[in-house]
Amino acid sequence: MTDPAECAPVKARVFSRAERQALYDVIAHRRDVRNEFLPDPIDPQVLRRILQAAHAAPSVGLSQPWNFILIRDPQRRASVRQAFARANAEAASMFPAERRSDYAALKLEGIDKAPLNICVTCDRERGGKVVLGRTHNPDMDLYSTVCAVQNMWLAARAEGIGMGWVSIFNDADLRPILGLPDHIAIVAYLCLGHVEELFDGPELAARGWATQDEFETVVMQECWTDPAAATD
Amino acid sequence: MTDPAECAPVKARVFSRAERQALYDVIAHRRDVRNEFLPDPIDPQVLRRILQAAHAAPSVGLSQPWNFILIRDPQRRASVRQAFARANAEAASMFPAERRSDYAALKLEGIDKAPLNICVTCDRERGGKVVLGRTHNPDMDLYSTVCAVQNMWLAARAEGIGMGWVSIFNDADLRPILGLPDHIAIVAYLCLGHVEELFDGPELAARGWATQDEFETVVMQECWTDPAAATD
Repeated sequence: MTDPAECAPVKARVFSRAERQALYDVIAHRRDVRNEFLPDPIDPQVLRRILQAAHAAPSVGLSQPWNFILIRDPQRRASVRQAFARANAEAASMFPAERRSDYAALKLEGIDKAPLNICVTCDRERGGKVVLGRTHNPDMDLYSTVCAVQNMWLAARAEGIGMGWVSIFNDADLRPILGLPDHIAIVAYLCLGHVEELFDGPELAARGWATQDEFETVVMQECWTDPAAATD
Repeated sequence: MTDPAECAPVKARVFSRAERQALYDVIAHRRDVRNEFLPDPIDPQVLRRILQAAHAAPSVGLSQPWNFILIRDPQRRASVRQAFARANAEAASMFPAERRSDYAALKLEGIDKAPLNICVTCDRERGGKVVLGRTHNPDMDLYSTVCAVQNMWLAARAEGIGMGWVSIFNDADLRPILGLPDHIAIVAYLCLGHVEELFDGPELAARGWATQDEFETVVMQECWTDPAAATD
């Protein structure tokens, strides 16, 4: 390894109040987009910045296990859309009878409407047989890949690009459409496109499907406590 | 559900070039911190902003399955440190003989040094038996929780707070220390504290343990291709 004497931290970049606020505003205004996509193509330089933000994510043992498959071909997207439709019909049948019509009324993907789809994969073999930090939790590579997805989501939002995560697929339907080898896991299937309008909060809350939890209920002190009794 | 007529998107917030650059700078300067923590406590308002950024993450079906357990007690942290040490000795023995001394020389956690540890958990039962978007991938709740961790990492960095993710634990050692019920999964064990110095790039690259992949190798077009042949 590198001589420790040559390897030392340096003065850390300090962020201004305005820079912090920019980050917080991007985080607050990020949405899971299903229907607001415009057909305009994404500028290649913008897309490159978004993907580079993803590639700058933390990864276990610096394994960088992710790949980004850019899907634009309408025929391929039609196949993906069919795979979604099949799984979504199964999903609808899993809900209690009284929720099924509400479920069916929700638009849960923008596969056709968004001009760009991106499948984010995780190479379960990248970094070799033993990866630092993955010895005791083999899913750390999947988690690293999700960190890349979240960086991408924020970068896209800051660029005026909406992004939606579609998770309603049978893995076995999607894999052949994308030609994935066995050691490559699908972590996220994403739809991206320019947006001019977005919901002013989580769409599932706006539509009355689910409610947001109060911040105070998710913070605990020292050890697990009954959430109802937890305080900040 | 809500009357669709009352439920529509609004004009989306537009981010300036300076705001985008702030986000990209936070992403580029984020580090996985193990040793640069200062002992100063984190201001409660700063910590609240960081945790609220986490709580603003996307979650499958708006289930918000995460909790944040704040651990400051030195005795509890000493127990966690022991659990790490036990797992890390096992980890060292998994590497090929020629890498073991290099592995042992790496500091991989800041459990004692950082004034605050946070265990981020995922409630596998939150949102009920059937969660929208989790019907075909039961791990979507874990992935949502990782999105919260990444928001937290970026928010912390913007606030001058370093964060490190410790993943070398036997789950069974850590659970009783934190009193976790069976349906609560540990997603991340994090160390946080003020930093004035950081590595100027991934520490594992600076130390010569691992190398960074070129951006061009991770982007593919339309379907999986041999990474060596892929171009942007």
